Amino acid sequence: MTRGLLISFEGPDGAGKTSVLNALVPRLADLCSDGLTVTREPGGVAISEKIRELILDVEHTAMDDKTELLLYIAARRQHLVEKVLPAIGKGELVLMDRFIDSSVAYQGYGRGLGVDGVRWLNNFTTDGLVPDLTLYFDVPSELGLARIEQNSDREVNRLDLERLDMHQRVRAGYQAIAKQEKRIVTIDASQPLPEVIEETYLHIKELLER
Amino acid sequence: MTRGLLISFEGPDGAGKTSVLNALVPRLADLCSDGLTVTREPGGVAISEKIRELILDVEHTAMDDKTELLLYIAARRQHLVEKVLPAIGKGELVLMDRFIDSSVAYQGYGRGLGVDGVRWLNNFTTDGLVPDLTLYFDVPSELGLARIEQNSDREVNRLDLERLDMHQRVRAGYQAIAKQEKRIVTIDASQPLPEVIEETYLHIKELLER
Repeated sequence: MTRGLLISFEGPDGAGKTSVLNALVPRLADLCSDGLTVTREPGGVAISEKIRELILDVEHTAMDDKTELLLYIAARRQHLVEKVLPAIGKGELVLMDRFIDSSVAYQGYGRGLGVDGVRWLNNFTTDGLVPDLTLYFDVPSELGLARIEQNSDREVNRLDLERLDMHQRVRAGYQAIAKQEKRIVTIDASQPLPEVIEETYLHIKELLER
Repeated sequence: MTRGLLISFEGPDGAGKTSVLNALVPRLADLCSDGLTVTREPGGVAISEKIRELILDVEHTAMDDKTELLLYIAARRQHLVEKVLPAIGKGELVLMDRFIDSSVAYQGYGRGLGVDGVRWLNNFTTDGLVPDLTLYFDVPSELGLARIEQNSDREVNRLDLERLDMHQRVRAGYQAIAKQEKRIVTIDASQPLPEVIEETYLHIKELLER
């Protein structure tokens, strides 16, 4: 039995990565004879879901930035151990909606907590595991925020109260990481959705055929 | 206004440190004209209390050791920022029932997660703050566990289900830390409680008179 593959979908809010992911699932399921797992942190793991509730609770205005980061990292660990690693072990293709790079972009760059510390925490939590491929959906901040506002399905949470400059810092962070890491492919997410989906599909197909 | 002082009380369960702390509060209050804060993690800080509920929930048998550690560290951060640092800033004497050394002893040594990682996490979380004095209450594991069983006031939680060898690893960890760090004073907690209280009082009085 061969080890499975891990692909992460990354980008600022409103980049459309979740829509792309959902659109691709039926097509990718056909390519993956050993199984396909689609997940996001905290990914339906009970302990991690409870941690996530804590993070997003609008009453927690006193939450310190480092507390927030450590809670995300704790939720990541549990999700990884309970769900992601077993799926990879079974030879599945695992698609993750957000992973380690979100912490670097949001907490390291966005909140200004520093990249080195966040990277250390990621490494401690994943025991050194990194995705085989990361798709970074890049979108101008004004467009990303406008898309969030149009999306009426989603409840407003504490993190939506952040300002435009936070979104811009996060984007700049992602762009910096994408330059440093070979595993990261940047996709222009300001294109029409069908084109973004097609480009994403081709990158994943290429990895699977390698 | 001078900066306050931080004293941590450390030791395995059943060492009696909480009893000692409670007995000393009236006497110490007389010595501290700038105020006295007695706290323990999570110390009545709402976010940290919720994190603690997660850690101790008996249903969470799937909790990974690193997840547990990261949750303790997150709770520590919030308690520190919301309660401990403001009290120190006001010039108070702050007595903490457990702090950074608990993580090194319980998670680093007890759970075998490694001392270096736990120390890094402590340092990240406290921004380098260490106690001015740490009182380590040393007790043989059999005696410590026997005392816990006698204490019927406390509800049994998930962590009580651990075995004797965990208690012994924790004690060995504390003893190792106490040898390495000058700020730590070891107190023989197998003595009768009045003697432990008196010895503890003298160490704190000495610090305050320095």
